[in-house]
Amino acid sequence: MLKDQFFLRIPGPTPIPPSVERAMSRPMIGHRDQSMDELISGLIPRLKPLFGTRGAVYVLAGSGTLALETAIVNVTNAEDAVLHLVTGAFGERFYRIALGQGRRAIAHHIEWGQAIDPDDVRRLLREHPDVRAVVATHSETSTGVLNPIADIARIVREHSDALFIVDAVSSLGGTPVEMDAWGVDAVATGSQKALMSPPGLAIVALGERAQKARDHIAAPRFYTDLRQYEKSLAESTVPFTPAVNLLFALDQALELIHSEGLPNVFARHLRMRDMTRAALKALGIPLLADDEVASPTVTAIKPTRFTPKALREAVRREFGVVFAAGQGKIANDIFRIGHMGYMSEADVLQYLAALEVAAKRLDPEISLGAGIRAAMEVALG
Amino acid sequence: MLKDQFFLRIPGPTPIPPSVERAMSRPMIGHRDQSMDELISGLIPRLKPLFGTRGAVYVLAGSGTLALETAIVNVTNAEDAVLHLVTGAFGERFYRIALGQGRRAIAHHIEWGQAIDPDDVRRLLREHPDVRAVVATHSETSTGVLNPIADIARIVREHSDALFIVDAVSSLGGTPVEMDAWGVDAVATGSQKALMSPPGLAIVALGERAQKARDHIAAPRFYTDLRQYEKSLAESTVPFTPAVNLLFALDQALELIHSEGLPNVFARHLRMRDMTRAALKALGIPLLADDEVASPTVTAIKPTRFTPKALREAVRREFGVVFAAGQGKIANDIFRIGHMGYMSEADVLQYLAALEVAAKRLDPEISLGAGIRAAMEVALG
Repeated sequence: MLKDQFFLRIPGPTPIPPSVERAMSRPMIGHRDQSMDELISGLIPRLKPLFGTRGAVYVLAGSGTLALETAIVNVTNAEDAVLHLVTGAFGERFYRIALGQGRRAIAHHIEWGQAIDPDDVRRLLREHPDVRAVVATHSETSTGVLNPIADIARIVREHSDALFIVDAVSSLGGTPVEMDAWGVDAVATGSQKALMSPPGLAIVALGERAQKARDHIAAPRFYTDLRQYEKSLAESTVPFTPAVNLLFALDQALELIHSEGLPNVFARHLRMRDMTRAALKALGIPLLADDEVASPTVTAIKPTRFTPKALREAVRREFGVVFAAGQGKIANDIFRIGHMGYMSEADVLQYLAALEVAAKRLDPEISLGAGIRAAMEVALG
Repeated sequence: MLKDQFFLRIPGPTPIPPSVERAMSRPMIGHRDQSMDELISGLIPRLKPLFGTRGAVYVLAGSGTLALETAIVNVTNAEDAVLHLVTGAFGERFYRIALGQGRRAIAHHIEWGQAIDPDDVRRLLREHPDVRAVVATHSETSTGVLNPIADIARIVREHSDALFIVDAVSSLGGTPVEMDAWGVDAVATGSQKALMSPPGLAIVALGERAQKARDHIAAPRFYTDLRQYEKSLAESTVPFTPAVNLLFALDQALELIHSEGLPNVFARHLRMRDMTRAALKALGIPLLADDEVASPTVTAIKPTRFTPKALREAVRREFGVVFAAGQGKIANDIFRIGHMGYMSEADVLQYLAALEVAAKRLDPEISLGAGIRAAMEVALG
């Protein structure tokens, strides 16, 4: 194998486009400088369409996990009841964040690989009439399931006064998020997935109702206190030294995303998903999630005739293609492919052909060429 | 003025060395990958000497402010009494962080431009025998004062069981920090000052007593919960997606710092300070802090014959040299020069000569050449 050549096909962090890499190296600027005002006031309006909101968008220095924490501590009080719809490892993490922050978190566990059934949410809201917020994951990175956020949002609005908070870490930028149209109150994401930027930026959007809540919440917070960011935004700045180079990167990534055009970006992600799923089906290798709920950004694969680890090791050793292991309780049962951000149909053809060679080595009954052919047919359209 | 040429001489963020800039663009790696293990396990042992500790060092994605918050929420409980020795804007911020996190924070205000008097601390500890922690700022970025942390630490240890927490954001890497030898329990810093790295990494060190506290604190926290980072460190990883590119940068910056050698790094910072102070004294322009307590990384200047703003605008317009304004209640009384990180005696000669030309324009009585000559004499040694 060619040394120092790797194809990172994990569901985040994702590869960085060359121009975004170069943007990171723009000369340092002071965070109280005019250039910072221009940077911030250029970023925010280009982020809003990705969230589908006319509300407020905040960028903090921190991981995606910090974005989730920021959403919850700004719109709920300590000891508030929060209903978590848990469909995988990241739903669990959000639940643990709420617990860690002293919320009365209630977890409703859905089988990993399945999506949330909106009818369940109706029932849960009746059972827990006191919930202050409902929390769901849009694209569950650990299972490759896309939850029906629009449907859940409608039910939450119809049957309660609870705010609806969504983890869009592995969905935002890869698939439509329509906060205002759907009735989602708060959305949290990170820079390192479909936004094709380096990790280290936590991005949070609040709709109108969540902004009102933000100003009345008494729960302890400082670094994540969005009232401070709101005040600074009025002057196009941030309250604390931002991760300047990562903002430079995000600025350039948004340039790329909006030049391609959001409908094209989303269509590309759907094609990458469909090519991937078509290939694996043609090879007879089972997928974890059903077609109807398959995430456009990550696919989880559950092979039966070889172990996920053997496949991952084989594609890495022979081709430098890096897939991700499973997480949590299904860690050893699946492997995952990230197809989001700076990735194209050409990259998908590459990793699928590599996957197929590796699978053939592990399982002689694989019909070589069947998978890639199915993917090419999807590409042909 | 040459377009697009700026010399950032503010007290952070500071300029990034070219090799550190390039390091940011290393190809992305997964955070559960072997390369991440190697990166993390290479970073931590090279950070420890900068903190002067054999204790634990943690790197989080976030601003310096997050580092301060992380220190306080991991070693004190909600409603614990915390004594803040406030010598400027960053002492105030640490106090507001403790309040924001529900601590019973007590502020002892020292006049801006003065250092903490260790004898005061003795008296304060008698007045507040229940304090769980004492908090001080090492180099107060808003005033250019270096507080006598070693002396304060000795008094805190002698007269109480309180833990001693220090903000070393603008000192660490520019002047010795000796946690273990001095008896400091927790130190917080950021990547963007004397560590000559991009902003966006919060770095926290805990000594033995603070590590014990960490495991018994029940206060709400999740993203900043160092128990999670401790658990991950055992496997040379981190609990949440790290700011990978910033870790690449820090890795290279530590390479530069340790190649130069810590004693040389610290001597360089002292020389930059002494050159700066000698020049301003020779020009008859008053300094905010006295020699005995002057920070090696930042100098605050309080001109009387022209406004700080006029001087800052003049050096920027004519030479592209960027100095910082004041902060908080002395915002309009001073300007500040950052001389830390990727900065040398040559840079100091440059900004001092530029400053002198600008000052001469504003005040004809300036004896042109007197300042730079004094600085050159310091350089001569």
